[in-house]
Amino acid sequence: MVYKKVTLIGTSPESFEDAVDDAAQEATDSLENVYWIEVEGLSVEVASADGHEYQAEVEVSFEVEG
Amino acid sequence: MVYKKVTLIGTSPESFEDAVDDAAQEATDSLENVYWIEVEGLSVEVASADGHEYQAEVEVSFEVEG
Amino acid sequence: MVYKKVTLIGTSPESFEDAVDDAAQEATDSLENVYWIEVEGLSVEVASADGHEYQAEVEVSFEVEG
Amino acid sequence: MVYKKVTLIGTSPESFEDAVDDAAQEATDSLENVYWIEVEGLSVEVASADGHEYQAEVEVSFEVEG
Amino acid sequence: MVYKKVTLIGTSPESFEDAVDDAAQEATDSLENVYWIEVEGLSVEVASADGHEYQAEVEVSFEVEG
Amino acid sequence: MVYKKVTLIGTSPESFEDAVDDAAQEATDSLENVYWIEVEGLSVEVASADGHEYQAEVEVSFEVEG
Amino acid sequence: MVYKKVTLIGTSPESFEDAVDDAAQEATDSLENVYWIEVEGLSVEVASADGHEYQAEVEVSFEVEG
Amino acid sequence: MVYKKVTLIGTSPESFEDAVDDAAQEATDSLENVYWIEVEGLSVEVASADGHEYQAEVEVSFEVEG
Amino acid sequence: MVYKKVTLIGTSPESFEDAVDDAAQEATDSLENVYWIEVEGLSVEVASADGHEYQAEVEVSFEVEG
Amino acid sequence: MVYKKVTLIGTSPESFEDAVDDAAQEATDSLENVYWIEVEGLSVEVASADGHEYQAEVEVSFEVEG
Amino acid sequence: MVYKKVTLIGTSPESFEDAVDDAAQEATDSLENVYWIEVEGLSVEVASADGHEYQAEVEVSFEVEG
Amino acid sequence: MVYKKVTLIGTSPESFEDAVDDAAQEATDSLENVYWIEVEGLSVEVASADGHEYQAEVEVSFEVEG
Repeated sequence: MVYKKVTLIGTSPESFEDAVDDAAQEATDSLENVYWIEVEGLSVEVASADGHEYQAEVEVSFEVEG
Repeated sequence: MVYKKVTLIGTSPESFEDAVDDAAQEATDSLENVYWIEVEGLSVEVASADGHEYQAEVEVSFEVEG
Repeated sequence: MVYKKVTLIGTSPESFEDAVDDAAQEATDSLENVYWIEVEGLSVEVASADGHEYQAEVEVSFEVEG
Repeated sequence: MVYKKVTLIGTSPESFEDAVDDAAQEATDSLENVYWIEVEGLSVEVASADGHEYQAEVEVSFEVEG
Repeated sequence: MVYKKVTLIGTSPESFEDAVDDAAQEATDSLENVYWIEVEGLSVEVASADGHEYQAEVEVSFEVEG
Repeated sequence: MVYKKVTLIGTSPESFEDAVDDAAQEATDSLENVYWIEVEGLSVEVASADGHEYQAEVEVSFEVEG
Repeated sequence: MVYKKVTLIGTSPESFEDAVDDAAQEATDSLENVYWIEVEGLSVEVASADGHEYQAEVEVSFEVEG
Repeated sequence: MVYKKVTLIGTSPESFEDAVDDAAQEATDSLENVYWIEVEGLSVEVASADGHEYQAEVEVSFEVEG
Repeated sequence: MVYKKVTLIGTSPESFEDAVDDAAQEATDSLENVYWIEVEGLSVEVASADGHEYQAEVEVSFEVEG
Repeated sequence: MVYKKVTLIGTSPESFEDAVDDAAQEATDSLENVYWIEVEGLSVEVASADGHEYQAEVEVSFEVEG
Repeated sequence: MVYKKVTLIGTSPESFEDAVDDAAQEATDSLENVYWIEVEGLSVEVASADGHEYQAEVEVSFEVEG
Repeated sequence: MVYKKVTLIGTSPESFEDAVDDAAQEATDSLENVYWIEVEGLSVEVASADGHEYQAEVEVSFEVEG
């Protein structure tokens, strides 16, 4: 069994969980067998027009071989 | 005064705070004089049967000597 | 264009987001052109009188030169 | 000349070398010009049904531009 | 569900895998529900009387709450 | 909005900036909405036939969702 | 031979050595075969009533298996 | 003698050296006795209107006490 | 409650504790509500005219909001 | 008693242990009182003519003063 | 085949590349089979009499065994 | 000007400063132009026959080119 990791950055005006889920959603939409997500970093864009934007950099692990 | 640190991983389907509190609860149930918790890592198990499970690895510091 | 970084620790009895916003508020009150906040660490003070206090250590980046 | 890095996790019931080779095999099957592999982490899944599973997280470098 | 982590150092005159298994064995002998082991460091004692001793520092995760 | 990160290694006989731009060029040729590049490491291959080759390992961030 | 590591924080109003020895003393009082201590961090509590308190976070290694 | 460190981010369309000097200039304009600068990170903003912007995050050390 | 962190380097011909106290003294002279100091690095200048100079880089935390 | 550390990279077509022993052998051939080896990194050269070459970067500690 | 690593700091009033080459030159003058240089750190001495001095700390790898 | 770094471990039954000076002494005995020492790690051997032995791992920088 081989797994692969990709790094995504999710964003949300609500919370860090939402930002993580934003990235998780993108992963499960485009990848099969997503099973594990590690948070690598959290940040907040203050200057964006529509208020605070929470950002979460995550590593998504998914099964490559069937 | 001597303190000791133990590493716990709390889990919750709700949020990272809940996962941290899950570990904090376990600590205060089994240890005296818990005073400080540091978050060492945050992750999400996507593949678990009942949806996303938020996980928080924490270091719990508590007083050893009276 | 030159930016500067300062390190703040926000606190909140509610959540990590609130603790981050607590620090962000302090920054935008006292600094011009705040644009980016990186979370450096999350912790929880358990022993404080009024229950759990969530803490977030953040690095705030702001524009120094006009 | 430009190279690209991808992160894979190989697994094996035998040894860490086998787990690294498992990932290397997957890489050379799906990528041209693989030339270098760095081991980022080693772990063992104890709870899996068929005994210990050695895991190796590796970064695979391969040539992107001809 | 709460998990706990303890740090052990296994040793073996044969190989790093054996040193990891030495620590894993100690863990499964004294702990219930051991499920995951991360290798934190590998070293070799050269000066020991009976030749090379491979050492593996590992973090063992096990389920605390039933 | 979701962003993705990929790791590239650019090379150049001239300078580190050129090596970074070499990787940036490869990214903008093959990816839409590239907006940020972080330098992860700098090195020099001394033994290559045609003199020093400056190398720059970079993380390229680009917008995944429109 | 298997060793275990625990993390302690020693304190002293005198010096960092004293703070390390404070933790070492606690370890040798409660554990057999303590043989090695690594200093993980040094800090000073300034606000404590009775002046500066030097603190040393240490990892204590001791033999688990006879 | 006591020194203080502040973190600045310099920018330049030309090179990393220029970005470092941009920050150094800001420091020597506003601080006395600047003596040492450590580069903490290098990055490139690709999406900025006027082409690549090289950025250098630096720690500037300067003498606080006369 | 919001805290701020600043980085100072204290020096002393005597010991590391003295170098830390040198920085602590500077902090408490110029700042209110200093409560915590973390040692980030220790070094020794050998080449200075008057023998060894012990240096301690520390992060000083103090209360910003009343 | 003073010890010194040198960094070596051993190689082997067989295994990581062999690569570590390759470096250990070189050390004990050229140095007196070698007593401890720490593995700093493991990698595999895939592109070398004669198949996979396992590489181990190690730090070798040996006694300098008699 | 065994390789050895040594740490050098090159300096130059011109640029970081020059500082790296300064160290590389010293290495190739005094060592056989130098093949790879990794940049470990970049800094600038501002206070030196003759203006900015760029410094580059590098690890030089060279073949030890023929 | 080129500087070189070597890693030494000094030991002392008295204090960390003594252990650092033990290594510094060894360096200045065997090397010209020693100017800077960085402490990389502090530890204590508890099990040694004659009580606690403080150990300090240090990086010594010295001028290579005249």
